[in-house]
Amino acid sequence: MISNMANAQIERVEPPNWWIGFKDPSLQLLVKGPGIGEYDVKIKQSGLSISKIHQADSPNYLFLDLQIPSDAKPGELELEFTRKGQAAIIYKYELKARTQNPEEFIGFSTKDVIYLITPDRFANGDPSNDIDLSLKEQSVDRKDDYARHGGDIRGMINHLDYMEDMGLTAIWPSPLLINDMPRSSYHGYAITDFYKVDPRFGDLAEYQELSQKAKAKGIKLIMDQVNNHCGLSHWWMEDLPFSDWINYQEGYENGENITVTNHRRTVNQDIYASDWDRDLMDNGWFVPSMPDLNQNNPFLARYIIQNSLWWIETLQLGGIRQDTYPYPEKDFMAEWARRIMKEYPLFSIVGEEWSYNPLVVGYWQQGAHNRDGYESYLKCTMDFPLQRTLVEALTEKEDWDTGLVKLYEGLANDFYYASPQDMMLFGDNHDMDRLHTQLGEDAVLTKMALAFIMVAPRIPQLYYGTEILMENSDKPGDHGFIRTDFPGGWPGDVVNAFTGEGLHMAAAEMQKFVRTLLRFRKGQKVIHEGKTKHFSPEKGVYVLFRYLGDKRIMLVLNKNENAVSLSLDRFSEMKIENKSFRELFSGHTLVLKDQLEISERGALLFVNQVDDD
Amino acid sequence: MISNMANAQIERVEPPNWWIGFKDPSLQLLVKGPGIGEYDVKIKQSGLSISKIHQADSPNYLFLDLQIPSDAKPGELELEFTRKGQAAIIYKYELKARTQNPEEFIGFSTKDVIYLITPDRFANGDPSNDIDLSLKEQSVDRKDDYARHGGDIRGMINHLDYMEDMGLTAIWPSPLLINDMPRSSYHGYAITDFYKVDPRFGDLAEYQELSQKAKAKGIKLIMDQVNNHCGLSHWWMEDLPFSDWINYQEGYENGENITVTNHRRTVNQDIYASDWDRDLMDNGWFVPSMPDLNQNNPFLARYIIQNSLWWIETLQLGGIRQDTYPYPEKDFMAEWARRIMKEYPLFSIVGEEWSYNPLVVGYWQQGAHNRDGYESYLKCTMDFPLQRTLVEALTEKEDWDTGLVKLYEGLANDFYYASPQDMMLFGDNHDMDRLHTQLGEDAVLTKMALAFIMVAPRIPQLYYGTEILMENSDKPGDHGFIRTDFPGGWPGDVVNAFTGEGLHMAAAEMQKFVRTLLRFRKGQKVIHEGKTKHFSPEKGVYVLFRYLGDKRIMLVLNKNENAVSLSLDRFSEMKIENKSFRELFSGHTLVLKDQLEISERGALLFVNQVDDD
Repeated sequence: MISNMANAQIERVEPPNWWIGFKDPSLQLLVKGPGIGEYDVKIKQSGLSISKIHQADSPNYLFLDLQIPSDAKPGELELEFTRKGQAAIIYKYELKARTQNPEEFIGFSTKDVIYLITPDRFANGDPSNDIDLSLKEQSVDRKDDYARHGGDIRGMINHLDYMEDMGLTAIWPSPLLINDMPRSSYHGYAITDFYKVDPRFGDLAEYQELSQKAKAKGIKLIMDQVNNHCGLSHWWMEDLPFSDWINYQEGYENGENITVTNHRRTVNQDIYASDWDRDLMDNGWFVPSMPDLNQNNPFLARYIIQNSLWWIETLQLGGIRQDTYPYPEKDFMAEWARRIMKEYPLFSIVGEEWSYNPLVVGYWQQGAHNRDGYESYLKCTMDFPLQRTLVEALTEKEDWDTGLVKLYEGLANDFYYASPQDMMLFGDNHDMDRLHTQLGEDAVLTKMALAFIMVAPRIPQLYYGTEILMENSDKPGDHGFIRTDFPGGWPGDVVNAFTGEGLHMAAAEMQKFVRTLLRFRKGQKVIHEGKTKHFSPEKGVYVLFRYLGDKRIMLVLNKNENAVSLSLDRFSEMKIENKSFRELFSGHTLVLKDQLEISERGALLFVNQVDDD
Repeated sequence: MISNMANAQIERVEPPNWWIGFKDPSLQLLVKGPGIGEYDVKIKQSGLSISKIHQADSPNYLFLDLQIPSDAKPGELELEFTRKGQAAIIYKYELKARTQNPEEFIGFSTKDVIYLITPDRFANGDPSNDIDLSLKEQSVDRKDDYARHGGDIRGMINHLDYMEDMGLTAIWPSPLLINDMPRSSYHGYAITDFYKVDPRFGDLAEYQELSQKAKAKGIKLIMDQVNNHCGLSHWWMEDLPFSDWINYQEGYENGENITVTNHRRTVNQDIYASDWDRDLMDNGWFVPSMPDLNQNNPFLARYIIQNSLWWIETLQLGGIRQDTYPYPEKDFMAEWARRIMKEYPLFSIVGEEWSYNPLVVGYWQQGAHNRDGYESYLKCTMDFPLQRTLVEALTEKEDWDTGLVKLYEGLANDFYYASPQDMMLFGDNHDMDRLHTQLGEDAVLTKMALAFIMVAPRIPQLYYGTEILMENSDKPGDHGFIRTDFPGGWPGDVVNAFTGEGLHMAAAEMQKFVRTLLRFRKGQKVIHEGKTKHFSPEKGVYVLFRYLGDKRIMLVLNKNENAVSLSLDRFSEMKIENKSFRELFSGHTLVLKDQLEISERGALLFVNQVDDD
């Protein structure tokens, strides 16, 4: 770590360090300090120079353009700030060597199951960091759904064993960067410093430790990033560098009413959208406590892109989840993703477009055949349409056009997507009712949903606690309550889901079901890479195959309370007859012949044994 | 007309005549007669020859391949059929000169409003043809929703004045070809001879008269065609030419159970669809009374294509509506449409894909960016998705994501379509509840729906009777009842909607509203060709603009019972402020300033006057 204690005049230089050897050798530093805009800057080392110095609208900023040659030496760089009549200031800036090849940053894929965690609510590994008196919100109250509960990075590190044991291979914690906001700062989406870990979650070293220890267990770390907005208490809100650093900045500075977004996300696609609606959508604030960043300001755009690269490199990430994808300028978002993917060709980014319209979701995926020519460079999207369809299919009465047929026809929409297998499928997340609640607390339906999610040609995501039937039926739609504490995460918890102690029977059974399913899935190339075939639901039964070579996986979702028999004739093209199969959940083996007799409601997963298994 | 009375041995030659000068000079004749398969055939005229004679599986058919040179002489062609030991048979076949240039077959477009008519239920212009004792169904009963009521071609001819007066510019009667079926033959979709008009509707000369008289009034005639199936009493069902002329033919011939389609239309797009489901969908019979034609048989495929060309040329059509579009083989359908559009480049075909999924509907339109490379050559599709959205938007409570916002977001899906302006939009048709019933018999909502349909960037279609508030609320979903008689169409009707006599006030008012709207629409290039812009609904009001040069049309749909005021600031990009506008329905003129005050629920249509009007 380089110490710049002597330079009190320079409050920040961001990014706080950089690396040698990026494909793009350019770097732009934000320098903040009182009156720094009046200074000239030089680099003392030979071979390195500042190509351009930009003044900002505020006198307290400078933006410096540097080129970092690929043969630059790692180590300290001395930036010399000079001004007539003032002593020169030396600021030491570190250039690091990269410790991992770009091709080793492997993103999440169909091979993974992603565990979404709300860190404040998962496990409190370090009670000493629960309260930080230097911050605006200074209390912990587990009885209040919207207060901080004390969960942290150490808690996640402590329970990597559990995740590994469950068969999980990636974690996506919601944002861990500082939210120094007066209230409801637990969720993490109101970031007040894009380079600082929230001290109530831990520090940078712990974040790096999480990444490394997870990686050692074959678990990728996905960072939840927010390009669209910051928290209202972000440090720069006191002294914004430019008059257009944030959108609707004038109103904010004059203390007028905040202009909020209209949330009409279709303006990004709509060929008839008005400029008025487009402006409100893109530039209005997400909520009054989250200023909307103006990515049309080239310095801000650069700041965000470099920030993402900095975290990928610093944490050796296995992916980014990008919040509120359709809200920033879409051309900026494409450039942001392009720049990341250029540096890390095997990386993965998933964007959140919360739309149930496949047309809109598909628009955002790299390779989409968009009539307006838009190319997002975004590999993964979230499959909200199929999530909703899955729940409808399971809860609706079976009929001609309701029930399982919706799942069959919903999956048929894959013909439209550029790469359906790169879409993330889930039953629930931190912003929606728990899956078990969506399914009317019917554990059999919850199993059916999870079996589909894990077998479908998708990247599956599981929300923490769904594996033990956590639900929010008493307060539907209540975000704070949806993000309930994971039992066993706090010292003294009576129930401990990590050990199974005190877990009620149905929860323990579901946990076992999920463990069985995920562990199985981990080794199945046929699920990761195989082809898909499915059959129109009949008699309340939907059958989906994954296949690769001679390998067959046959998922049977049966909604009948009573026994039902399926003629195997229909499936003859899958060549399963007279072959031996094992049913995953029961462990039974059988030779498929003539009819498949199904005795009860639920999910059955038949797998054959092939020579190369 | 050529007489072939002498040739009793030759029962049919189809097409019954042909024309000189098609881009494709080839012609294939189906010849039917007892033992005709044993004959040799020659053309007696010099310069014309049969390039190939095909025997069928049945001995009673021959298929003859001819080439018609572009310089052939119109007139009689003599086909000489010979067989050892038999007298030669001469069959006179007529080659006609074309009387209209291919470019004069102008299809329907955004300039038109199409009137969909169920001919049996519109007007009985010739009571003498109501019953034909040579046919299987021999009764007329206006009290029975599923019996014939006596409406006919003469009835439509008689009321062309009404249609013209209403501002209609195209008619689409459901099929007029013979349905010699034992019951429910009124609807016309079970055709038993593809070259014969149903005598209860009239004859070919009357059909031609309808076309010509309609054309003289600027009204295009659209023919409703069915490529997928025929009626079970079709003449060829007694003696099918080939063993694969129809699908599931063996079962039919053996008197086994008929295999019906599974109606899983997504198999046409679904990359995961099973062969099993695909086969059932394409090859299963639409209903047990409608055999599924096998378009993979090249002779049948040719028969259908030539049949369509024959009707276009014979009736000088202004368009085709194709039934059950996704049910035949999709590659055949593309070839069928390609062949028609090649001969008539300005023609229009609209296909019925009854899906509420824009992805699926858009797939069928020419120019779609389909990942499987499918190119349909189909210019127009039916906009079932927007039809449903419109009804939901009007009937749902206004909220964040319900009500008018659905219309706004539904229209936003246009970004996906190859040419949204070539889609047909409607409030109802012969297969769904009457619009007024769908809208809870709320005449104000019905006006709002019709105003939207006529102003949207679409080809609008009106179902006969919807202009006088015909409804079917007593029997929702009942097809026979939906297709109720148009009042005044029968001698002695107490109410006459053609003259307005006896029409109740609300119906008369709606008729006036529709007449005003359609007549206005007819002259508005801004609706036919203009651009579109719309604004996210606010306060229960949705505003849609059409514009072209300085011309502006502003449609305001207001769902509020109470007065509401709209700030014109939002619409500043449309440059309407301080300009003079006329409101179409009230006739009032006003200068738009600051606020638009709306006093009541309903549709307002503001139009400005520009110099070139």
